[in-house]
Amino acid sequence: MRNKQVMFRDFLAKGAFPKESDMEVTESTIELTSAVAEGSKGVLVKNLYLSCDPYMRIRMQKLTDPAESYIASFQPGSPVTGFGVARVLESGHPNFKKGDLVWGLTGWEEYSLLPVPETCFKIEHTDIPLSYYTGLLGMSGLTAYAGFIELCSPKKGETVFVSAASGAVGQLVGQLVGQLAKLFGCYVVGSAGSKEKVDLLKNKLGFDEAFNYKEESNLDAALKRYFPEGIDIYFENVGGKTLDAVLLNMKLHGRIAVCGMISQYNLEQPEGVHNLMQLIAKQVRMEGFNALDYYHLYPKFLEMVLPPTKEGRIVYVEDTVERLENGPAALVGLFSGRNVGKQVVLVARE
Amino acid sequence: MRNKQVMFRDFLAKGAFPKESDMEVTESTIELTSAVAEGSKGVLVKNLYLSCDPYMRIRMQKLTDPAESYIASFQPGSPVTGFGVARVLESGHPNFKKGDLVWGLTGWEEYSLLPVPETCFKIEHTDIPLSYYTGLLGMSGLTAYAGFIELCSPKKGETVFVSAASGAVGQLVGQLVGQLAKLFGCYVVGSAGSKEKVDLLKNKLGFDEAFNYKEESNLDAALKRYFPEGIDIYFENVGGKTLDAVLLNMKLHGRIAVCGMISQYNLEQPEGVHNLMQLIAKQVRMEGFNALDYYHLYPKFLEMVLPPTKEGRIVYVEDTVERLENGPAALVGLFSGRNVGKQVVLVARE
Repeated sequence: MRNKQVMFRDFLAKGAFPKESDMEVTESTIELTSAVAEGSKGVLVKNLYLSCDPYMRIRMQKLTDPAESYIASFQPGSPVTGFGVARVLESGHPNFKKGDLVWGLTGWEEYSLLPVPETCFKIEHTDIPLSYYTGLLGMSGLTAYAGFIELCSPKKGETVFVSAASGAVGQLVGQLVGQLAKLFGCYVVGSAGSKEKVDLLKNKLGFDEAFNYKEESNLDAALKRYFPEGIDIYFENVGGKTLDAVLLNMKLHGRIAVCGMISQYNLEQPEGVHNLMQLIAKQVRMEGFNALDYYHLYPKFLEMVLPPTKEGRIVYVEDTVERLENGPAALVGLFSGRNVGKQVVLVARE
Repeated sequence: MRNKQVMFRDFLAKGAFPKESDMEVTESTIELTSAVAEGSKGVLVKNLYLSCDPYMRIRMQKLTDPAESYIASFQPGSPVTGFGVARVLESGHPNFKKGDLVWGLTGWEEYSLLPVPETCFKIEHTDIPLSYYTGLLGMSGLTAYAGFIELCSPKKGETVFVSAASGAVGQLVGQLVGQLAKLFGCYVVGSAGSKEKVDLLKNKLGFDEAFNYKEESNLDAALKRYFPEGIDIYFENVGGKTLDAVLLNMKLHGRIAVCGMISQYNLEQPEGVHNLMQLIAKQVRMEGFNALDYYHLYPKFLEMVLPPTKEGRIVYVEDTVERLENGPAALVGLFSGRNVGKQVVLVARE
């Protein structure tokens, strides 16, 4: 069988913006019937949906010190990898059998051989669109859950700020955090980078307030306007000056879940954050996290999110491009803020 | 009865160094027998020991937004206040009776009327020097316990870095954290600002290593030398560039207890911290705290610290000045790094 693949060409410089030409679509072949070697615990899958995620930018860069990052670089000359939804075609692993649907780390190609399928979750609920497992019911959802629920322990009536809730990146996790916060009875404000995205947050996703950070010359003043009593929980996607302004507005015993610092990724030297003394003044906890550490809580997460998803109480917007060939453009578009919803690549309809 | 008092004169400018002349010693009188009004729950005490603590510098400044700090400014024209050990002379409160020994917030004067004595702890164990309740068995000890044990949950074999472990300020808490860490079987390195203090840490207090930060032009390199595998727990007293270097050396799931950021207090504009993205890369938790939130754990703390203290397994060094009149000089001396041990003012021998 032919196997179309999106190959990663070469590492990007630290400050560089990703371009389509950093990837190329090639074709190889794969032997479907004997792909899973005798005695191997690997699994051969047919990829159905692929996920475009902000963290993939970091993987496009040569990570000199592997200990510096929680994820490995892409390999030049090998396919891009990321989260996706796939159908098992052949399995050497006792937990997976032919025909199973799974989501997890896979390759940007039509067919992938997954040598360690334990990192995949079997999809048990198929009465919702399968593509949701690339986002809402996949890593983004688990990330929102881990950072907001597990790290910040929200309580009814608390005030929540989500930066880049629908910005160029981090948008999906931020959107979900805001909606989880509303389910918990919190007051939620999001920031985004365009009028269209602000409208989405306020009118479709149920945020109490939202503002365009590009129109606020004084972010501290903006936060004081939306949070006259201060912020209990900050879900951090931005870093730099935004974090500095938020620190001035945290309430006593506030919590900051550090999910990303997107404003910093493309800078040669990250901006300085000056107001960390507020951590002491307000006894604030600030914690970086990785949803991989919360894999064991996936069933607990599903239990919380499936019912409101089925009932339509969680609004989920997808931007889907068809065909693997359009994957590179979709991924690059993520970083110019083109997409509004979760960016998905549909590789194959079954 | 005459009542000698150390009065606070006027607020210091933000960057100003405290001077003796910011305080003055005056004398008033106090009616001992009827000091506690009928129906009041106040307590009249004779002050025995007063504690000189770094956080007192912040209180010398006008805190424009009371919400900005967890403590109130000193009142110009009123006595300096701080932690001390005192004997109850008269009590309107059911929990305290004449003759009780207490420690808690009191005034820098010979006699104090404490209107809310619930904030004081009764001293039950008197087979150790009473002055210890201004430090090791008082707020400093509870601070070390709360930040290190409660926030950082140390495990045997973990690596611990304590900044300013015997520096100009923060010294006592840092010394205790290091010793608690050794009791837990951790590897502990401290930084300090002089050869004398480095020797104290290594040779008297049992730190595994210590270094003079003034002699290290590259703090990142120094930390890599002492922590080739990285830092599990950082007890933060310094802030700024030190924190930036530490962030580069944190291990996965490291914990940072933010006790103080002394290098920043006297700056007009705090330094920028650039490496916060490491919080995500290493999933690090960073938390500001205030020992006041851990008052309810004081018995648990005493249970842990009293036995090794009595057995001499915790080394505790005090610098004592006699007489209230010498209090201002002792307090100011704290900020020039003059003292080596805990700075105490002996007000009265009984």
